Amino acid sequence: MELKMDAGALNTLMQTEFPQVATDYIVETVVPMEVTVRLPVADRHLRPGGTISGPTMFSLADVSIYLATMAMIGPVTLAVTTNCSIDFMRKPAAGVDLIATARLLKLGRLLAVGDVLIHSEGMKAPVARASLTYAIPPK
Amino acid sequence: MELKMDAGALNTLMQTEFPQVATDYIVETVVPMEVTVRLPVADRHLRPGGTISGPTMFSLADVSIYLATMAMIGPVTLAVTTNCSIDFMRKPAAGVDLIATARLLKLGRLLAVGDVLIHSEGMKAPVARASLTYAIPPK
Amino acid sequence: MELKMDAGALNTLMQTEFPQVATDYIVETVVPMEVTVRLPVADRHLRPGGTISGPTMFSLADVSIYLATMAMIGPVTLAVTTNCSIDFMRKPAAGVDLIATARLLKLGRLLAVGDVLIHSEGMKAPVARASLTYAIPPK
Amino acid sequence: MELKMDAGALNTLMQTEFPQVATDYIVETVVPMEVTVRLPVADRHLRPGGTISGPTMFSLADVSIYLATMAMIGPVTLAVTTNCSIDFMRKPAAGVDLIATARLLKLGRLLAVGDVLIHSEGMKAPVARASLTYAIPPK
Repeated sequence: MELKMDAGALNTLMQTEFPQVATDYIVETVVPMEVTVRLPVADRHLRPGGTISGPTMFSLADVSIYLATMAMIGPVTLAVTTNCSIDFMRKPAAGVDLIATARLLKLGRLLAVGDVLIHSEGMKAPVARASLTYAIPPK
Repeated sequence: MELKMDAGALNTLMQTEFPQVATDYIVETVVPMEVTVRLPVADRHLRPGGTISGPTMFSLADVSIYLATMAMIGPVTLAVTTNCSIDFMRKPAAGVDLIATARLLKLGRLLAVGDVLIHSEGMKAPVARASLTYAIPPK
Repeated sequence: MELKMDAGALNTLMQTEFPQVATDYIVETVVPMEVTVRLPVADRHLRPGGTISGPTMFSLADVSIYLATMAMIGPVTLAVTTNCSIDFMRKPAAGVDLIATARLLKLGRLLAVGDVLIHSEGMKAPVARASLTYAIPPK
Repeated sequence: MELKMDAGALNTLMQTEFPQVATDYIVETVVPMEVTVRLPVADRHLRPGGTISGPTMFSLADVSIYLATMAMIGPVTLAVTTNCSIDFMRKPAAGVDLIATARLLKLGRLLAVGDVLIHSEGMKAPVARASLTYAIPPK
């Protein structure tokens, strides 16, 4: 399996296609079927009490599997999430970025399935896990 | 079963505890174990192409089950989502609000479980469904 | 929407295609997009302590959505489950059948999505809920 | 973290507590927070057409996370599954055992959360993935 897009190309794709959120998601590493994505945590991601909101972690998981898929098949902006199951397991550490590791478990012609582990940077125990299915539009 | 909070009290709770997002979620009806919540769709909820983003629908489902739980047990701002499974089934209609109907299926001492159907206002076929589990903090 | 198969035709399908489990699943009612299925609980469904096993409830949910789909599109024995999310909420009542109510929320050309509520017969509070996605083979 | 039970102890637990299914699940390796379990595939696990049934894979995932939890906390036969999300991704290979790798992602006082990958023995691509939550009874 060969990469169609590397970290630089994925970051450029985000800036072009999703400019309003591109600064939230920094692709750090890309290997076949796996990417890591950093979320630089900012005030807008926090809930009262200072914890990172559930939708912030959902979005990070969702974008990360999308990017892992794009890395393998090339840019397809119309791919849509059809299912996500997410477990919120621990409160993220305060003042630390989130790091998502997304791996594809299946990359078919019509569907991609993958899972994601989200960590507070530098912590061993994950804060959330998610699995997602993407529908890939026919060419 | 008796309601601890009605629609007015829930809307006030949102404005007090979550002022930055309170205008996104309008509680319309409350009966025991079930609420309906309107999301007035605005530009910030849209993805390129004009469709409503997945995180917007996730957040609506999440808030709706939270509000259904608060209606029954009274305000507990520290309740946290532990699990969500969501299916995105259809593209929402353009220029129309989303309406979420959230019902509690279990309301235990420590856990609440419920499901949510999300419709584009006036459409019969749902755009998304979700099921969620909330952990209720001990008193 | 019109039914392609009624309760009698679905029960016959089960006996023909899945004879080894057909006595476990009795279709009771069928309307467009919804079926109810009875599981006559027997010793083989029980775990130590007398509770009904998780796999028994998973199977009931799985078969019920399959039957709801067949009711609408006619017999397609090669449909396969691609995803299931299930919540086990309460211990089923002892010595009572399980009743599953399965409704289709989306019936596309390639995918069917539905959810299921499982009750112990005569009890108001559900014992489990599930949502499932089926892949429908192309004709 | 220290193991409370090794592979031999877990296999003995299965034979004592679940004698009717103990031959289906052979614990092969145990390390802290992770077990591998073999399902020797037999006719009773097959659907028409020779594929392994969904409930067989659900049961394997369910038992594997249970065993990973028991390895860490010692025998607690009353632990119950509260949630499972499972993706069926590929048809298992014919005539080959299934191997489940279950890892715990959170082991709290009241809840354990883990995920499972299921492979046909000798194949690189997984046939299914699952995530599960277990409620651990208070001592």
